Amino acid sequence: MTTDSDESDPTDAEAACFEAGIKFGTLYHQFAGTPISPDSAASLERAMEEAIENQPHCTEVTVAVRTDELEAELADSAADYTELTGRFLEVEIVVDYEGCEVVTRMAMEDGYPLMRVESVRGRDSSAD
Amino acid sequence: MTTDSDESDPTDAEAACFEAGIKFGTLYHQFAGTPISPDSAASLERAMEEAIENQPHCTEVTVAVRTDELEAELADSAADYTELTGRFLEVEIVVDYEGCEVVTRMAMEDGYPLMRVESVRGRDSSAD
Amino acid sequence: MTTDSDESDPTDAEAACFEAGIKFGTLYHQFAGTPISPDSAASLERAMEEAIENQPHCTEVTVAVRTDELEAELADSAADYTELTGRFLEVEIVVDYEGCEVVTRMAMEDGYPLMRVESVRGRDSSAD
Amino acid sequence: MTTDSDESDPTDAEAACFEAGIKFGTLYHQFAGTPISPDSAASLERAMEEAIENQPHCTEVTVAVRTDELEAELADSAADYTELTGRFLEVEIVVDYEGCEVVTRMAMEDGYPLMRVESVRGRDSSAD
Repeated sequence: MTTDSDESDPTDAEAACFEAGIKFGTLYHQFAGTPISPDSAASLERAMEEAIENQPHCTEVTVAVRTDELEAELADSAADYTELTGRFLEVEIVVDYEGCEVVTRMAMEDGYPLMRVESVRGRDSSAD
Repeated sequence: MTTDSDESDPTDAEAACFEAGIKFGTLYHQFAGTPISPDSAASLERAMEEAIENQPHCTEVTVAVRTDELEAELADSAADYTELTGRFLEVEIVVDYEGCEVVTRMAMEDGYPLMRVESVRGRDSSAD
Repeated sequence: MTTDSDESDPTDAEAACFEAGIKFGTLYHQFAGTPISPDSAASLERAMEEAIENQPHCTEVTVAVRTDELEAELADSAADYTELTGRFLEVEIVVDYEGCEVVTRMAMEDGYPLMRVESVRGRDSSAD
Repeated sequence: MTTDSDESDPTDAEAACFEAGIKFGTLYHQFAGTPISPDSAASLERAMEEAIENQPHCTEVTVAVRTDELEAELADSAADYTELTGRFLEVEIVVDYEGCEVVTRMAMEDGYPLMRVESVRGRDSSAD
């Protein structure tokens, strides 16, 4: 941030967190609803990772489909595939914005897929 | 179709074409908007194929991202990725429903991505 | 169809069913995953109807969100919204293609959202 | 944040910005690709606003479809509808997280739809 910025301007760390949030919303709402089975899970994981890594400031995306959970649901079902939704996903997204590194994660918590910021590092990098 | 069916009931061939249309609408609207670059095109092609092949009666899906078209757009752009849309796609979907095989295709025609039924075979398979 | 067409060419009725399928796949995979609550259901119904009615050959789309089902799910939940999915939807789509009218419907059957062709009328309209 | 938190823990303002980013990614990738015409723009605007306002900490969403831009594109086209994408959208999303208010916006800049944080207020609200 420049020295004449308003105090309501976002810091680099805040902008980094905003960028990380965009990636999570994109990943979830682009791919939720995709037909998925244990056999097709690996190709979808890879496509999700590579698609989101295209976005600006995104240094790493790791997607794991919880195939155990998927198999458990399909075992109770007449179908052999289902739709991708949050309870089948574990995701980590790392964003680097102006030297500020933000690690964010989505995982199940109390029965809901929760997205959250794990850590913010390099907050004062823009002060130099 | 059973012999006491109403004449407005769909034939197997008509039901097969309906199923093929569902797959095309699914493929397009599930994945359009995905961030894509020449480097990530291959993983998205694969994921699209395997996802749609999960759906009932779908025997084969072939997706080719037109990377030449993608590279041409990015060459004129300040960005190094774009969003997946119809002009970057060539898709063939084959459906088999009750012995009726339908081949459907999407490709650019006069500047628009056009989805159409290429062939319907085995129409009288249900007459036996 | 012209008289010199191949026997594997689709009939108008088959093409009409293909078009109807596209609309269903579009509707479902464009909007599944949308955050929804009883209060926002009406605006989403309307937007889904008007969006799909834009598509070629689509004469009428009727979307009803099953708010009773939505409320039942939310009553068991700590959240006050959920994601749109098939069990909350009843949809009817009517397509007219070259004089052939196809009525298609999605509703729950045995616990699954099933899309199907209800009726095909005007099959011989292209024979004149 | 509790007093024994690690210095890499997110501040409330950073968490607020992450939440705002999620809403933007959701809005864009849930609805991009929707068939849209000048006539259907109003119902989609309303549905987008109400859908995203369901999400946690989201106090206000304002969506304007740039119908002038839409009409200009359709005037050059054989079609009477197109797909929703960033250049047709102006969006403002306000998030309130633990007393921290973040205003975020998407608009065209140099030919690209740019999402950014406009202001962050109430940063020290959690210090009390």
